[in-house]
Amino acid sequence: MLESKAAAPRLGKDEYKRLYKPLAERLMVLQQMARFAGLGSIVLFEGWDAAGKGAAVSDLVVNLDSRYFNVYATQDPVGSESRLPFMARFWSRVGGHGTMTIFDQGWYHAVMKSLAMSSSNDEDAAARESFVDQAISYSTSIRSFETQLAADGYLIVKIFLNIPADVQRERFMELLLDPNTSWRVTDGDVDQVQRYGAYAKVLERLLSVTDRPAAPWTVVEATHRRNANVAIMQTLVAAFEWALAARGVDTTGTIDEVAAAVAAHVRDDGQEGIGSAADLSSMHELVEVGRIEDARHDLVVGKREYARRLAGLQEALHRQQAELYRRRIPLVVAYEGWDAAGKGGNIKRLAQGLDARIYMVNPIASPTPEELARPFLWRFWTRLPRTGHTAIFDRTWYGRVLVERVEGYARPEEWRRAYDEINEFEAELERWGAILVKLWINVGSEEQLRRFNERQDNPEKRWKITPDDWRNRERNDDYATCVDDMLRLTSTPYAPWNVIESDDKRYARLKALGIVSAAIDERLGDAGLEL
Amino acid sequence: MLESKAAAPRLGKDEYKRLYKPLAERLMVLQQMARFAGLGSIVLFEGWDAAGKGAAVSDLVVNLDSRYFNVYATQDPVGSESRLPFMARFWSRVGGHGTMTIFDQGWYHAVMKSLAMSSSNDEDAAARESFVDQAISYSTSIRSFETQLAADGYLIVKIFLNIPADVQRERFMELLLDPNTSWRVTDGDVDQVQRYGAYAKVLERLLSVTDRPAAPWTVVEATHRRNANVAIMQTLVAAFEWALAARGVDTTGTIDEVAAAVAAHVRDDGQEGIGSAADLSSMHELVEVGRIEDARHDLVVGKREYARRLAGLQEALHRQQAELYRRRIPLVVAYEGWDAAGKGGNIKRLAQGLDARIYMVNPIASPTPEELARPFLWRFWTRLPRTGHTAIFDRTWYGRVLVERVEGYARPEEWRRAYDEINEFEAELERWGAILVKLWINVGSEEQLRRFNERQDNPEKRWKITPDDWRNRERNDDYATCVDDMLRLTSTPYAPWNVIESDDKRYARLKALGIVSAAIDERLGDAGLEL
Repeated sequence: MLESKAAAPRLGKDEYKRLYKPLAERLMVLQQMARFAGLGSIVLFEGWDAAGKGAAVSDLVVNLDSRYFNVYATQDPVGSESRLPFMARFWSRVGGHGTMTIFDQGWYHAVMKSLAMSSSNDEDAAARESFVDQAISYSTSIRSFETQLAADGYLIVKIFLNIPADVQRERFMELLLDPNTSWRVTDGDVDQVQRYGAYAKVLERLLSVTDRPAAPWTVVEATHRRNANVAIMQTLVAAFEWALAARGVDTTGTIDEVAAAVAAHVRDDGQEGIGSAADLSSMHELVEVGRIEDARHDLVVGKREYARRLAGLQEALHRQQAELYRRRIPLVVAYEGWDAAGKGGNIKRLAQGLDARIYMVNPIASPTPEELARPFLWRFWTRLPRTGHTAIFDRTWYGRVLVERVEGYARPEEWRRAYDEINEFEAELERWGAILVKLWINVGSEEQLRRFNERQDNPEKRWKITPDDWRNRERNDDYATCVDDMLRLTSTPYAPWNVIESDDKRYARLKALGIVSAAIDERLGDAGLEL
Repeated sequence: MLESKAAAPRLGKDEYKRLYKPLAERLMVLQQMARFAGLGSIVLFEGWDAAGKGAAVSDLVVNLDSRYFNVYATQDPVGSESRLPFMARFWSRVGGHGTMTIFDQGWYHAVMKSLAMSSSNDEDAAARESFVDQAISYSTSIRSFETQLAADGYLIVKIFLNIPADVQRERFMELLLDPNTSWRVTDGDVDQVQRYGAYAKVLERLLSVTDRPAAPWTVVEATHRRNANVAIMQTLVAAFEWALAARGVDTTGTIDEVAAAVAAHVRDDGQEGIGSAADLSSMHELVEVGRIEDARHDLVVGKREYARRLAGLQEALHRQQAELYRRRIPLVVAYEGWDAAGKGGNIKRLAQGLDARIYMVNPIASPTPEELARPFLWRFWTRLPRTGHTAIFDRTWYGRVLVERVEGYARPEEWRRAYDEINEFEAELERWGAILVKLWINVGSEEQLRRFNERQDNPEKRWKITPDDWRNRERNDDYATCVDDMLRLTSTPYAPWNVIESDDKRYARLKALGIVSAAIDERLGDAGLEL
């Protein structure tokens, strides 16, 4: 893809204008159509150093309506970003449906760096290997990112700005010779000029491996800025025409007509019942955790024993959390469960053992409009703890396969693919080094009813119970099916579900805290003994 | 306030429970009432190192509903925060009305550090003075932050955890002697122990100077954790009871009754017309910029001269922006103007001169629910550029005294105090070192009408014009009054308004870019010549 062809001659000023202007005007129209049609897009610029990515982005964006795009110049992670999973800084920047997100360097940049390092002769073998390992781990994360966005309806355009070795060398010489610009040339740049051939080999491989139908590469010859601009515009116009047409938008009409057609289009859900997940399996390794109807309801613990053991567990957790902080290990505790199962009180007892400065409880309610306009995992990517910190989720990303499935908020094709999207998400957390503990807080139907009535009868507790709770209760059988599917399809070896019998809340609290504490111990390994 | 009294004896376990539990339960109820009443609160914990701030916050928050509070442990600025104005990281974390925002250390921490430094004998005189300067600048920013929040209806509770010198010394010894905790003791901590007396003197002064009615201090003796917890609870319960009562909430009722009463309360705006600002003056120094009716409408520039001068200006801006980046000077360009005055095209020509990686256009539309729930400047605090970057605002914080005043979205007492809130905001930007350029894009009424009709007649441009535009046009006289008040009350020496005559768009673009370029030159001073 990157072989040096003789570059096309530089476009003259008038010729450039003649080619460029109608394309730019067309893109402005397509941007508005995409806005009305709810087509989100990701435009990524990668390329050789000094290929002119900054100029290309600058020239592009002045033609766009600034209300509906964002530009991110992603260099290396800054500040607390380095304490989040590799892809978190890209996930968190994804714009909503109808908007365009432009990255000037992105997720391939880091892979390129690692791969290029691994091809260096200066490094010792072990270091080389670790770069390759890192690159492989990155590319897994990237595949999941691009695939999930594409499945969610995003248009993904990846542009590689290509320049031959002599052009790159010349540009750097120019920068170096001018005292106003010489500071911009880094050691990495110099290395790339000196080992252009090695980098080219690596890049070739990277581009061809990651050239997927849902997220194809376009290599743009960038020796001449005008020529590159025209090629970029052609690529974008074609991509938008195609993506809009694929959504059934008639792009030959006016913007008004598109807006009217979209507004008139009533989505036909036509869903009856909750559908079945019986035919689904996972691409991830799974472990067996049983079915929810087999959970016991007779487990209790006495008041005095409870007090004694709770204090011990909270003390242990406090020490363990300090150690996690010191070793920069993030902890994620995911709580799901029946209404009135006792999630809140359980979380409170866990939190009592923790230092409020380094944990956060994330209560998950209905998504906001901003969140609804993005892939469903977005609001969890943006709520991850930093390394060393703890995030407790009071309800989680499993809402997709529970309430959204039961209520039909997610279409069947959406919730059905969500199991593996979730498994991928959790695999990312695992690669990042997080401890992930998932707790299903379980309660029998009669005990639930008793608690509902108790809340209803107590004026100081009445606000805790809503008509929704009663309505959900009527659908408990549907929910049970969904819970079983969830337990079956998302219990991975590194993130299995734990069913917490909570007919007796004291028992449930001790069990939950014990599981969290044991998971930390397991990770801390020998170091745990030190405590 | 900090004089060492003999600490009260440590509360026994049962006594603690007897005192603490009813307070904690009451706070839970008050938190729900505050939620329904829309009462936002800021709870700040400051104190001596090792006074137990972390424990106090942890003990507090487990009693709260995690949906309606957030905790921030603010140490020193991290990552890109250091490239924003001092108060930006606190402004951006302010939660919405109805929620509680808890800071474990905050804006006083930095001042304390500076003041303590200035009292040190080790530093030379010049360094001491610069610390004092910084502390004074911080305290100005703090006053504006607290005053604006209080005016916006927030409850502000500031708690200082006080321990005597011997208790602090003992706690640090304990930490140092345990190999599991010794790493937590910093040089700053040690300094504080060694110079407790000097710090105490500085703190006394700081607390008394910043003990304002809208944001009073409560000093809590923190030698015994239980005693401190009870005192904190008492403080919070009393503060919430008071703040809710001040809002007309009957806190003797149940949560349901409060919710019902709030829902039934229909806000009586009763506003007629746009009101007058004639009696208003500013506490800030102002400069004269004239009235909008005196603006000329006959200024034009020829096509060829335009092309030549535009290219020159854009080139200059490109060089200047690189220099701003290198010297880490932030640039903020604020665009306001009549509908169809040509703001968009003007911004586009400015942007063409800039590098997209370090500028961002912020289009300002109606506020989101999240933004509406906070002080109106919040959404601008969170959109500032980093040092060295450029932010262009397509409409701005002046919406408060323009559209919100005309349409009655802001109550008279809100928009009337907004002029000086804005002046304070811009003074912060100035103290931070930003270049701020404010442009009013002006067009005559007939030319505006011509442009409206032109848009209406062109199917590709019709989406640009909405019924709102026609409706606004009918209120042009009201807007003119608001524009004049704005020009009069917010033209400070460092951020004066510039009226850009835009009946001829070419003229307007050259003038706008020229003003931006000149403002940069002025700041760069001699260094400008280097370019």
